[in-house]
Amino acid sequence: EYQSSQLPAAAKPSEPNRNRHYDPKKPHITDTKITKQNWWKHVNWLNVTLIVMVPLAGLVASFWTPVKWQTALFAVIYYYFSGLGITAGYHRLWAHSSYSATTPLRIFLALVGGGAVEGSVRWWARDHRAHHRYTDTDKDPYSVRKGLLYSHFGWMVMKQNPKRIGRTDISDLNEDPVVIWQHRHYLKVVIFMGLILPTIFCGLAFNDFLGGFVYAGILRIFFVQQATFCVNSLAHWLGDQPFDDRNSPRDHVFTALMTLGEGYHNFHHEFPSDYRNALDWWQYDPTKWSIWVWKQLGLAYDLKQFRSNEIEKGRVQQQQKKLDMKRSKLDWGVPLDALPVMEYEDFQDQAKNGRALIDVAGVVHDVTTFIKDHPGGKAMISSGIGKDATAMFNGGVYMHSNAAHNLLSTMRVGVIRGGCEVEIWKRAQRENKDVQYSKD
Amino acid sequence: EYQSSQLPAAAKPSEPNRNRHYDPKKPHITDTKITKQNWWKHVNWLNVTLIVMVPLAGLVASFWTPVKWQTALFAVIYYYFSGLGITAGYHRLWAHSSYSATTPLRIFLALVGGGAVEGSVRWWARDHRAHHRYTDTDKDPYSVRKGLLYSHFGWMVMKQNPKRIGRTDISDLNEDPVVIWQHRHYLKVVIFMGLILPTIFCGLAFNDFLGGFVYAGILRIFFVQQATFCVNSLAHWLGDQPFDDRNSPRDHVFTALMTLGEGYHNFHHEFPSDYRNALDWWQYDPTKWSIWVWKQLGLAYDLKQFRSNEIEKGRVQQQQKKLDMKRSKLDWGVPLDALPVMEYEDFQDQAKNGRALIDVAGVVHDVTTFIKDHPGGKAMISSGIGKDATAMFNGGVYMHSNAAHNLLSTMRVGVIRGGCEVEIWKRAQRENKDVQYSKD
Ligand code: HEM
Ligand code: HEM
Ligand SMILES: [Fe+2]
Ligand SMILES: [Fe+2]
Ligand SMILES: [Fe+2]
Ligand SMILES: [Fe+2]
Repeated sequence: EYQSSQLPAAAKPSEPNRNRHYDPKKPHITDTKITKQNWWKHVNWLNVTLIVMVPLAGLVASFWTPVKWQTALFAVIYYYFSGLGITAGYHRLWAHSSYSATTPLRIFLALVGGGAVEGSVRWWARDHRAHHRYTDTDKDPYSVRKGLLYSHFGWMVMKQNPKRIGRTDISDLNEDPVVIWQHRHYLKVVIFMGLILPTIFCGLAFNDFLGGFVYAGILRIFFVQQATFCVNSLAHWLGDQPFDDRNSPRDHVFTALMTLGEGYHNFHHEFPSDYRNALDWWQYDPTKWSIWVWKQLGLAYDLKQFRSNEIEKGRVQQQQKKLDMKRSKLDWGVPLDALPVMEYEDFQDQAKNGRALIDVAGVVHDVTTFIKDHPGGKAMISSGIGKDATAMFNGGVYMHSNAAHNLLSTMRVGVIRGGCEVEIWKRAQRENKDVQYSKD
Repeated sequence: EYQSSQLPAAAKPSEPNRNRHYDPKKPHITDTKITKQNWWKHVNWLNVTLIVMVPLAGLVASFWTPVKWQTALFAVIYYYFSGLGITAGYHRLWAHSSYSATTPLRIFLALVGGGAVEGSVRWWARDHRAHHRYTDTDKDPYSVRKGLLYSHFGWMVMKQNPKRIGRTDISDLNEDPVVIWQHRHYLKVVIFMGLILPTIFCGLAFNDFLGGFVYAGILRIFFVQQATFCVNSLAHWLGDQPFDDRNSPRDHVFTALMTLGEGYHNFHHEFPSDYRNALDWWQYDPTKWSIWVWKQLGLAYDLKQFRSNEIEKGRVQQQQKKLDMKRSKLDWGVPLDALPVMEYEDFQDQAKNGRALIDVAGVVHDVTTFIKDHPGGKAMISSGIGKDATAMFNGGVYMHSNAAHNLLSTMRVGVIRGGCEVEIWKRAQRENKDVQYSKD
């Protein structure tokens, strides 16, 4: 209410509910606790049928259905087509407008995507926009924070309260006649593209109606569904976070292999308007390659890319964050401003009386226990005791490595009043009585 | 002269030259240019014989020498022994004192290391300490800056001016009777361990004197030499620099495989007193494993490790350095202090007159060209024009990603006088006339 009243042109109410019995004023089933008596009311039986029962039936049927290699090959090809319908169509084109497509391509994608049996473009893209906008929150329709299985298909198997899902603006989709047409005739599209087309094609082409129905129809649907569901589960659970680790999305090549290239999901959540999910040519992103080919064929245009400068900035910032975390776990020695201040005379006195103190750059270091371990020998390090060894340490005698500087900082015990110039001042004073030197 | 006069106990002159004709007062051959007439005087013929001629002869002889599998097996085992003599003995024990060894182990290492024909421990360790102390400079005996081939064996094939090599302290080696003994009897050790022992062993054990001489003797020497030479060439040329990139040493698994684990050379140059070259168990460092086994057998003790805190500090610093380099190549937008200052009224006026200006956190952004690309839609972004959109942008309407913040910073065009609170002040002023607000 806050948004729509403030910004009239934007966020409209969610997709209207298809269920004629749904009344937004009545309490929803999800407002009551699951019990032994009412659990079956919580289950979304239509979805259970579509994504569990039917595939199981197909699996059982496959025991009695012989496999023809032509049908198997067609099933695999058709699997890729319906997968692309979801990844290149539903996802990158409609949910994210990461490129534009001509009407023929849009019709093709709406049809093969429909054959994957994952809902209409309109319903899918609305939920997906909410997923991006409210990632990992309660308004995220498939938040992985509610469990891996929930994000995979629990959110479909159990009924959801439509009011819970975050609102998003789908005015652009409502202006796309292909989207509207597919939404209106969704059931027909599903049945035809999901089952009838593969059955008839395999029947007429290879005289294998049954195989077409079981393999290219039912079981192919099952595999496409499970694969694309992985984008909501696996891609929020397995892999690296090179761009941002505040939310759950992750990059992993395994997820990419499962999902036609949607596995570089940390990148995708950071740059959703980019038509690519993977940046490098050697990363597996066939959805990106397909879109690129369609562009060459004149079917797609206006492919959007985030400026690489911004992408690299994100990478650098995340690396910095990781590095800062690592740094904070290490011991960097007592900070200079927490060290006691020593007079130079004091430093010299203590060094004469058995405490092996060395002054480097105005900081006093106690090397007593280190002398015997000094890789440059006892004689060398001992020659610096009670002295300002700044020059010796930094190349006058030996240009110490970065590691030696780090080690040195762990031996800090004090800072000298007046800083590193004290000894030079003193010497000048001795030689030329009129140089003045004031204690601060 | 500077060092030895200043620090009497330390750095002594280099190893005395074995050549009786050498007179440090006469000009050295390396002081004259190489010409067609004198080039043969520049060549170190003894070394050419030992590391080029003899191996070539062995190669030729191998055409007429049948291979017995027992001899081949012994040659490989003996190869590892003489290799370990160099890596675990010459290098990690004597040159770097990274652990201590009992007399039996020291004798063993001095003997098998001698069988690799790479000079005496004393000579080898003196040069190697100079290599660490003066890495990549003219005082480095095998500086890779003079070319990969020079660092591999050019420095041995051509005569070198002994005065050029940096001085190092080898007083500890002069106190080790095994080192002194091996140095004094070096020629006998080489001939016996390099050739006689393998010949006699294979002769008596497998009745294969000739094979023992050619394969376990000459050709094994050749392979050990070339492998260990790689530490000076390949390890300064191929791979990563996870700890420090100011000098040439590099880490690479290929070099490690060639050199019994000496290929993690960036680590080694940073932490030479550590008995390990590789830290992780899955990295190939059989020299480290051998030392560890000797420790379990009571033959080695006092294995030195750099504190892992210091090692990780080095890694973090180098990563930071790389990251800073990457960062400096990116465009981070006009720095705030380089932006012109705008009055809030000015900002509002310009926004009304067609320039799409949005104020976020007191910084004015020109989003004119971005409106049509805004992933949240034209309506959303337009609603922020001419206003303080700080809250909207940061979660009030939509919690923008890090990427969006980065993009925003590239659109900066000015800062508002008074910062982000101006609008709130103005509103308060309107509502409550007595609130005072002063222009700085
Ligand atoms: C005050 C604390 C000191 C620390 C923590 C320290 C640490 C180290 C370390 C870690 C090395 C091994 C090589 C490296 O990592 O660069 C080294 C080498 C060396 N140090 Fe120091 N050092 C100290 C003081 C001195 C002083 C005062 C001198 C000379 C006056 C000196 C002379 C040398 C020399 C000559 C080497 C080279 C050894 C070689 O490779 O031949 N060090 N030192
Ligand atoms: C002022 C410069 C702006 C820039 C550079 C900008 C940038 C972006 C970007 C890159 C996204 C994509 C998602 C993301 O990366 O987080 C985005 C999404 C969004 N922006 Fe902005 N934005 C701006 C202003 C605004 C304003 C003023 C509003 C609202 C008043 C707004 C509302 C949104 C919304 C609601 C989304 C979410 C779209 C969705 O995923 O449904 N943006 N913006
Ligand atoms: Fe996601
Ligand atoms: Fe997405
Ligand atoms: Fe080296
Ligand atoms: Fe070394």
